Amino acid sequence: MKSQNLVPLTISGDQLAGARLIRLLEEGHSAGIEMLKQLYPHTGRAFVIGITGPPGSGKSSLVNCLITEFRARKLRVAVVAIDPTSPISGGALLGDRIRMRRHIDDDGVFIRSMATRGQLGGLSATARETVLVFDAMGYEVVIIETVGVGQDEVEVAQFAHSTAVVSLPGMGDDVQAMKAGLLEVGDVFIVNKADLSGADEVVEQLEGMLHLANRSETDWQPPVLKTAAIKKEGIVELADAFWNHRQFLMDSGQFVSHNFEWEYQFFRQLVMEKAADRIFSIAQNTISFKTLIADLKARRIDPISAAEKMLAEFQVL
Amino acid sequence: MKSQNLVPLTISGDQLAGARLIRLLEEGHSAGIEMLKQLYPHTGRAFVIGITGPPGSGKSSLVNCLITEFRARKLRVAVVAIDPTSPISGGALLGDRIRMRRHIDDDGVFIRSMATRGQLGGLSATARETVLVFDAMGYEVVIIETVGVGQDEVEVAQFAHSTAVVSLPGMGDDVQAMKAGLLEVGDVFIVNKADLSGADEVVEQLEGMLHLANRSETDWQPPVLKTAAIKKEGIVELADAFWNHRQFLMDSGQFVSHNFEWEYQFFRQLVMEKAADRIFSIAQNTISFKTLIADLKARRIDPISAAEKMLAEFQVL
Repeated sequence: MKSQNLVPLTISGDQLAGARLIRLLEEGHSAGIEMLKQLYPHTGRAFVIGITGPPGSGKSSLVNCLITEFRARKLRVAVVAIDPTSPISGGALLGDRIRMRRHIDDDGVFIRSMATRGQLGGLSATARETVLVFDAMGYEVVIIETVGVGQDEVEVAQFAHSTAVVSLPGMGDDVQAMKAGLLEVGDVFIVNKADLSGADEVVEQLEGMLHLANRSETDWQPPVLKTAAIKKEGIVELADAFWNHRQFLMDSGQFVSHNFEWEYQFFRQLVMEKAADRIFSIAQNTISFKTLIADLKARRIDPISAAEKMLAEFQVL
Repeated sequence: MKSQNLVPLTISGDQLAGARLIRLLEEGHSAGIEMLKQLYPHTGRAFVIGITGPPGSGKSSLVNCLITEFRARKLRVAVVAIDPTSPISGGALLGDRIRMRRHIDDDGVFIRSMATRGQLGGLSATARETVLVFDAMGYEVVIIETVGVGQDEVEVAQFAHSTAVVSLPGMGDDVQAMKAGLLEVGDVFIVNKADLSGADEVVEQLEGMLHLANRSETDWQPPVLKTAAIKKEGIVELADAFWNHRQFLMDSGQFVSHNFEWEYQFFRQLVMEKAADRIFSIAQNTISFKTLIADLKARRIDPISAAEKMLAEFQVL
């Protein structure tokens, strides 16, 4: 496959080409970024769903069921599974995720696993680029699954159109804290493993908290749904809930404005990184930069004053 | 309390002053950043411990036991507890953390809860500043506890001197993935709730994985320890393990070089943010910026080309 064919092949939906392009982007190749520009006119259509919740809540099984359900509705589905893997050893395909392989022969399904890599903003940058590639490939639904509770979830919520927060019957204090934290970012609340005892209590608790959150009547009212992914229960209703939310976003103009916000953040982050790269590459070999770094190392200057000095000396604007 | 007294009071260890200064930093006040400069010469001494692991692994109980143990060793201890709370409602003190309140009358102990706030780099920026304040206040040990698994953990590992990864007997696939991911960032491995069955299997698994990781003989060899925090078992050994690691870092020069790396990252992030702030504030009211944003909104230009145009037009260097 010649690299000049990567863009047209990706747009035509070729999975091998898409995977190669995503790898270029993950590795930070400038060629990848150039190709992303060409893909851009073919994006803006995919509906991006984020699925988030604590370890062991059965997110991967839920995603698996959703793939089957959306495929039955004749929709093409791509998945980004975020692994909390190390900055050193990179991504690994483990556990539940292997179950998704049953879709491996269906070219209406495309699954990528991704390491968080440990960079600042690493998740949001690479996942966002990957979603753009999926979008250009014509996947109508993109599901982002994060294994974790915390910063990752908030970032996923920032660029998914619809974020589902998964809870379980009978988990401890940490999950309580999680629910309090993710209450405002959730568009759909799922109580999975609802065949276990205590599910109704969690549903009631969530509904109570959502009631207190006091959304305006014209806002989206997040539903609380019970599922039992391994028994395939509640999946049709869950897919319906996402589709209702998508319709709500379309009708209210929020689908388009959400896409713009996301692109603006992408744009701003790029300006920030490119500006810093230029400043540091110009400074790199000067004596004053070397002196500044030596002073920082010897603790003769603090990092804040050093940053101010750097910006002043290299006359950024 | 007058604001010009905040710095000397903080350095003297006054908790009210320290808390006010941390609040200024959290809210992004420039006054806070100015004060941080003055605190800086009093920093660089604290030993920073990160405790990380999945929800329900008993991290807060472990932290609580460690506080008591370090206090018995006449060390002053500060704690940053990171809540995965929302970008909207802010931090909340929930669950286990309340148990820490038993230390509330001991001024050798200072505990702050912190929301992740949803900004990019939010955790690392604010937590880092908070650690600097604790350091200047004379706390010999700073413990950072994160509720979560993923990006947060990797970031904590990047600025803690010693990172402990907490596992539990008999958890599922997600924890396996977590362990694979956090294997390289862990300096101490804890199997908590070791009174439950299956603890020895997890210890063996971890030791096997660490053995495979094949560290060089002069590297730190991460110990695997069993604890039962609610029964206060294994805590003396855990505190010893941290102290041994601290000694190793001191003897090898890694304590100092680690602090420098952390400060360099802080410096670079500040340069990046300040440069972008200047570029955007200068551009803000120009016609060409407004045209660029309108084009971005109408999808007449992609975010990457827009960033390039922005940097070219506003002649950044």
